[in-house]
This record gives sequence, structure tokens and C-alpha cells, in this order.
Amino acid sequence: MFNFVVKGTAFSSVDPKNVNTFENCLFCISETGVIGKIIAPESEEYDQIIEEYSAKNKFQELAPDQYILPGFIDLHIHAPQWAQAGTALDLPLYDWLNTYTFPLEAKFADGDFAETVYSDLVTKLIKNGTTTALYFATVHREASRRLAEICSEKGQRGLVGKVVMDDLEQNPAYYRDATTAVALEETELFIQEVLELNKKTPQGVYPVVTPRFIPSCTDDSLKGLGALAAKYDVHIQSHCSESDWAHTFVQERFGKNDAFALNDFGLMTEKSVMAHCGFLSDEDMKLFAEKGTAVAHCPISNAYFGNAVTPVAKLLHEHQVEVGLGSDISGGFSPSLFDNIRQAVMSSRMLEDGVDKSCCSEKRGVSGSSITLNEAFYLATAGGGESLSLPIGKIAVDYAWDIQIIDSKELPIFSEEEPLMTIFQKILYLSRPKNIDEVWIQGRKVHDKNKKELEV
Amino acid sequence: MFNFVVKGTAFSSVDPKNVNTFENCLFCISETGVIGKIIAPESEEYDQIIEEYSAKNKFQELAPDQYILPGFIDLHIHAPQWAQAGTALDLPLYDWLNTYTFPLEAKFADGDFAETVYSDLVTKLIKNGTTTALYFATVHREASRRLAEICSEKGQRGLVGKVVMDDLEQNPAYYRDATTAVALEETELFIQEVLELNKKTPQGVYPVVTPRFIPSCTDDSLKGLGALAAKYDVHIQSHCSESDWAHTFVQERFGKNDAFALNDFGLMTEKSVMAHCGFLSDEDMKLFAEKGTAVAHCPISNAYFGNAVTPVAKLLHEHQVEVGLGSDISGGFSPSLFDNIRQAVMSSRMLEDGVDKSCCSEKRGVSGSSITLNEAFYLATAGGGESLSLPIGKIAVDYAWDIQIIDSKELPIFSEEEPLMTIFQKILYLSRPKNIDEVWIQGRKVHDKNKKELEV
Ligand SMILES: [Zn+2]
Ligand SMILES: [Zn+2]
Repeated sequence: MFNFVVKGTAFSSVDPKNVNTFENCLFCISETGVIGKIIAPESEEYDQIIEEYSAKNKFQELAPDQYILPGFIDLHIHAPQWAQAGTALDLPLYDWLNTYTFPLEAKFADGDFAETVYSDLVTKLIKNGTTTALYFATVHREASRRLAEICSEKGQRGLVGKVVMDDLEQNPAYYRDATTAVALEETELFIQEVLELNKKTPQGVYPVVTPRFIPSCTDDSLKGLGALAAKYDVHIQSHCSESDWAHTFVQERFGKNDAFALNDFGLMTEKSVMAHCGFLSDEDMKLFAEKGTAVAHCPISNAYFGNAVTPVAKLLHEHQVEVGLGSDISGGFSPSLFDNIRQAVMSSRMLEDGVDKSCCSEKRGVSGSSITLNEAFYLATAGGGESLSLPIGKIAVDYAWDIQIIDSKELPIFSEEEPLMTIFQKILYLSRPKNIDEVWIQGRKVHDKNKKELEV
Repeated sequence: MFNFVVKGTAFSSVDPKNVNTFENCLFCISETGVIGKIIAPESEEYDQIIEEYSAKNKFQELAPDQYILPGFIDLHIHAPQWAQAGTALDLPLYDWLNTYTFPLEAKFADGDFAETVYSDLVTKLIKNGTTTALYFATVHREASRRLAEICSEKGQRGLVGKVVMDDLEQNPAYYRDATTAVALEETELFIQEVLELNKKTPQGVYPVVTPRFIPSCTDDSLKGLGALAAKYDVHIQSHCSESDWAHTFVQERFGKNDAFALNDFGLMTEKSVMAHCGFLSDEDMKLFAEKGTAVAHCPISNAYFGNAVTPVAKLLHEHQVEVGLGSDISGGFSPSLFDNIRQAVMSSRMLEDGVDKSCCSEKRGVSGSSITLNEAFYLATAGGGESLSLPIGKIAVDYAWDIQIIDSKELPIFSEEEPLMTIFQKILYLSRPKNIDEVWIQGRKVHDKNKKELEV
């Protein structure tokens, strides 16, 4: 017995390089919102299942120009920074943080402001096809909890971190944890509150231990956060080896790279996701692989603040590190993982070929760095699911029914014989949010372009 | 006497670095679709003009969340390749051209196919805010003329080139000009036909002399095309120093760079626009500046096929070369110049900072290369107008009323006191085609999101 059955054509990664097409298959969804069975047209039971679920009014057949993609998984997004998305990106990182970002985040002490911004963001992300998001909130426990509640209410799978930044020297007086003890107490209370909220949230909301990055935290808070993550077995997120400055800062403080320093504090686990990682050494990459810690690649943001291109092909294929994709609002301007998929491909090609014409072509780039569109799609879907150790990001049995239905009518398709993989490419390169007809999370429809009332 | 008056807030470049805001101004549009006068709120005649044109039902007041931008000018787009936009970009250039692009372009011998694709493209470009486009069509004169007619009919300012590719060795037998003589005859006939069409096209359609690029043309056709351009005083377009391969090919054939070779054939004029130009030497840049020839920068395409980042800051500020922006459909996947503005900024920052983390930060990039959002906006608007030597791309007296009206309602604006230049940044970084409410060209409304019938 399934809860409902959908007939349509879907695309899903089988591994980083290969995408599977499910042409006119039946997707049978269980009571718990999980894919129970996938039935191909040549199967004996195909017609019978259609008949049975049509009779029960539990059958949805997609239009011929609609296609199913897994919902996207945004592995790195600063929810409060939605209010400044797209602005001040011409500034250096230090000015951007101190003149704009920290003052903005400080405003989330105000519950009404937090409610307005977070509510708009979660709605917009869902409309952009993001079914799961790993959020940095702010230092404020209450506003951070409110973000988790908004995810719960709107049906999005949210992983939310109350940010810890307790170093008195490194953080502005108007925006930091009052003391290390308070930072840890508030984090523990936050974890307990969100674990409680999770019990009544079918799609799941998860607390995340979130040291902003090593420079903003004391040794004691880093140690305490590692202990809390172990005690509650929860996810961990931070920034790791993002830029020349951050990378060098940590080397000077600990005499080692971010990855090993984080590991000393118990912050590199199977459930850890580290943003950026543009400056990992080979040893760092090995540690990531060994610990099962994932990299959140944020290609748009990195063009502004990364100082280099994260070597995704090397992480994936040479070191078997788990890698997903992050929007990094508002270091990145776009809430859409479609945009980040495109940039991941472009940035990787720019790393492969190099950028400076005055170098000869042999020395200009880093051979073997380019990734394909299939690989970038993998990052935004299956790679994100693996990174979070959750059964999401694939169209496969026992995976959550987290999907987006794309309307291809406005795409430049002029032939009835267009191969499915060509349509797939046009969808990934040319879709706009308005081409997303429906979004489903854990078997529940959370967005329907043609029905306003769902857009809570 | 004006034809109509619009009250609203507009943004326009004054020079590459600076953007002017016209807050709640009156834009008075003449019978010929040109801006006749701009009246600021503090002007004495402000209220009187509103009263006068309201009484005549010739007054439009924008909503408080609507903003005016100049329409975008796409300086490089292969119209037939719209049918394959977003596909096969994982391939090397040679395979991409021979397996996909040339077979596709050959299909434009079929008038019905050309009609379908060109008609869809021009409509889509207008919806994306592109009010002027400089098109490569195909070798076929009739289909190319049809593209000019479609621009004329839909109200877009179109500059259209019948492509010349007559070298028997370099082009496939199924897709090239039959002979050099035929190439030149067809081009001349095409020029005459489009000049005739222009007489009944208020916004203007223009014939463009279009050698595909040096490698695909014989010396005789290049010479003949230079002579035709001079005879009819028309625009010229081609590709110039695009990639390692193309750049080296020309050096081997002529013992000089593209720019000087093109100049020898009379193809570097004030009305010339050369695409890509990633490999120009300092001498090449000086020649561009001296001749008044413009560069069409195509940042998305270049990430796939350019092998380097075109040094836009250097072209603009060190050599005072005219530079505009091109989508380069389908070497670039996006028909939107918003996307290309964003990529122009990102690519310039990647050139500035470099991409390979294993280089030390001092040697990684090319200092002085990054451009601001204002500069990228300039490229898509005023820079494009200068490149084409047409009075377009600015909100200024005697410029054409070519504009897009942006709806900012869905943008993340949470404060009533958001500064105008912050809103401008959010518009440029976060607008989607559906946020474009209206598009006007030469004083005529050619797109209205809320009125289907205009979307011919
Ligand atoms: Zn971040
Ligand atoms: Zn081109």
C-alpha cells in the first residue's frame, strides 16, 4: 500500500559522473513520504498500479513537458544575510563583514525582524527547488530556534546552527557571545529545543553545532562544541581554509591547517560539513576522507572571497571526499542552486584552463580540474545527501520523496526527438525559478506555482 | 510637445565607474521614441507637466517598487544556436562545432525552422530585457533576412549578419558558402535588403558584415567584405583572438595577431565589434582604441571556450577601448545579460585573485583586473551603445527610450530606508526575467508581463 503514485520522467545521479533517466516510470510513495517502489513501463504491474491508484484518486500523471529532479540540498547558507543578498560584494572581506554583515546579524536579536527575513527566505528557497538547507543563523538562540520552526512549518528539511563566536578580541562587542560559558549553554539549550521540535516534524529539523570559524572562537568554546556534538550526536558545520587570510591565521595560531585544528577539537566527524575548503592540502583532504567530513563547495561566493577555486575534481576523484554545493548567501548572491551548479562547472573550467593569458597555455591552469554538468548536478543532489548522511538527493527506493517538477515549455526545445539527456542539460542551464511548477518534501507538496495558498 | 511622460526612478551609467540615479523624475518621450527632456522633482514645471499629460491620458506613473534600467545591448549572439543553448558544453570546441553547431546551423536552409527558432529567440530576448542585439545568423541569406524582419516586427533593434565562411579546407562541405564570389554577392544583396527594411523600422535594423572568424575565410572574402563594409558604411563583426587555438592559427597564417590581420582587410573600423578578444596584446589593444573598434566581452562563453579571462579593466582604463557585453549564445548558455553582468564581475575577480591555490597569493592573479558591478552594468548598457555608435544604453536626453521596468517586490528588501544604490545592486544580482514588468524600445512598449497579447 502506497500513499500515492506519480507517473513521470525523472533524472537522478547514480554516481558523480553518471545520471540515470527514469522515463515514464511510476514512483510509489509511502505513508512516511519515502519512495517505496519505482516501476518501469515494461513491468507487468505497471498498468494495474495506474488503474488501482487512479480509482483511489491517488495518482498524478505529469504533463509530457514536465520533468522530475531531486530537490536541491544547500549545504551552506547564512540565513540572516538574505537581507543583504547581492549587496556590497565589491568590498574586501574585512569591510564586508564589519561594515555590513555583523551589524545586520546583530539585528536578529529582534524577533520580528528575524521572523520577516527567515520566513521570506525559506519560502524563496523552496520556490527555487531547495528542499534541504544547512543554515548558519546568528548568535541568538531564540531567533535561531525560530528559523528551525519556520522550516518545520513550511515543510522544508532544515539543519540549523546557532552561531558561536566568543573570542573577545576577534568579534565586535555589539555582536558576539557574552562569554564562552554562555555560548556553550545556549548551544546546548538550542540543541535540546530543536531535537524536541524534530519529534513533530515529519521531514526533519536538526540542530547543528556551529563555530563560525576558528578565528572567531576560543580554544575553550571549540573544545566544548566538539563535546556537545559528541554528546548529542548532531551535525557540525564551520568554515574551513576559505581564504588566504583565514588559512594563514589558523596556521599561525595552531601551527597546523584548519582541518587538523578542527579535528583536535572533535569537530571533524561523519556529520560535519565544512564550507569552502579552497586551501586544503593533500593531507587535509585525506583527513576529510578518513573522517567522512564533507566539503560544502560555494562557487559563486568563492569568486568574491575565496582567492582560489576549490579543486572539486581532485576532492571527488583523487581523495573520495564527500562534496556538496552551497549558495553561501550572502557571500554568494544567488539563492538558487541552479546558479551554483552552473558556476561550479564554469569555475572548474577556469581552474583547468587558467585565467591569465600571459601565462603559456601549459602552465596557465591545473589539468584534470574541470567537472561536467553531471558532476555539478551530483553535488547539488546526491552529494549533498551523502554529506549530511541522510537518505535524500536521489530518486531511489528508500530515499525521501524530495523533488522538484520542472516545466520545460519555455526552454528552447524545437524538436520532438530531443534526447532526454539534452533536455536534462537545457533544464540545468536554462531553468528559472518560475519554471519550477511544484516542490515536494518528504512526500508533501510544499510549493505549487499555480496555487497561491501553498506559498505560505 | 512630447508623445508621453513617465514618472519613475531610473539608474543609468554616466561613465564606466559611476551610476546616476534619477529619483522620481519625469521622462518626456518624443514622437520619435527619444528622450526629449528629464525633469527632476525640484523643477518648477514638474507638477504642471504631470497635470498636462495626465489630462491627455499620456502619463504613466511607476509603482513605488518599480525601477527603470536602460534596456540591455547584447553585442554577440549566434541566433541559430538558440536551439542548442545549454547543451554539449562539456565538449572541446572542435567537437562542439563539428558534431553539434555546424549541423544545427546548416538546418537554417529550412525557412520554417528558422522562423520558429528566430521568432522564439527574439521574444525571449525582449522578455530578458535585451532591447538591442548584434546577431550572427547563418550563411543563408534568406533566413538571415527573416531574422532582421522578425526583429523589425517585434520591435527589437536588431543588427544582423549573414555569416561568411568560404574556406573550402576549413569548413564542412555541407555548411559553407559555395564560393568566395557567392559569399560576397549574397552579402551585398543582404546588405541592400536590410537597408531597405530599415526604412520602415522605427527602432532600426542594420545589416552587418560578418566573416565568421579568420580561420573560416579566404583572403579574398576578407578583402571583399572590408570593401563592402566601406561601400555601404555598415557595421562589421567577427571573432578575434578568442582562444589559444584561434589566436595561434592566425599568427601562423599571417605572421601577426588577429587584430592587425583584420585591419589589413579593412575590418577594424569605428563600427566594428569583435567578440572575445581574450588574447589581445598591448599593441592589439592600442589598435582597437585607435580604430574605435569595440570588444564584445562574453564572460560565460569564455569560461567554456576562452582559455583565459578577457582583461576588461585593462581594456577600459589602460587603453580606453570600447567594451560591451555579449551572451554568445550558445557558447554561453544564458540569453540574459543579467547573468552575463554577474559573470563579468566574477570572472574579473577570478583573474584578479587567480584560481590555483598552489601559487602563492602574490603570483596567483593579475592585480588591477577586477571590475565592479557598476562597470559590468556599464558594459551591458552604455558601453554597448558606444560600441555600436548608436544613441542607446543611457537614460539621457537624445537617447532612445529603450528601457526595462523592474519589479522589486520579490527582491529581499526589508527596510523602507534601503538606499537606492543598494536596491540597484539587488536588482542586478537577483532579478529574474519574471521581475521584468515591461520592456520599451524606441518609445514603444514591446513587452508587458501582464498582457499576453504583446508577447507576440
Ligand atoms: Zn559562510
Ligand atoms: Zn561567437
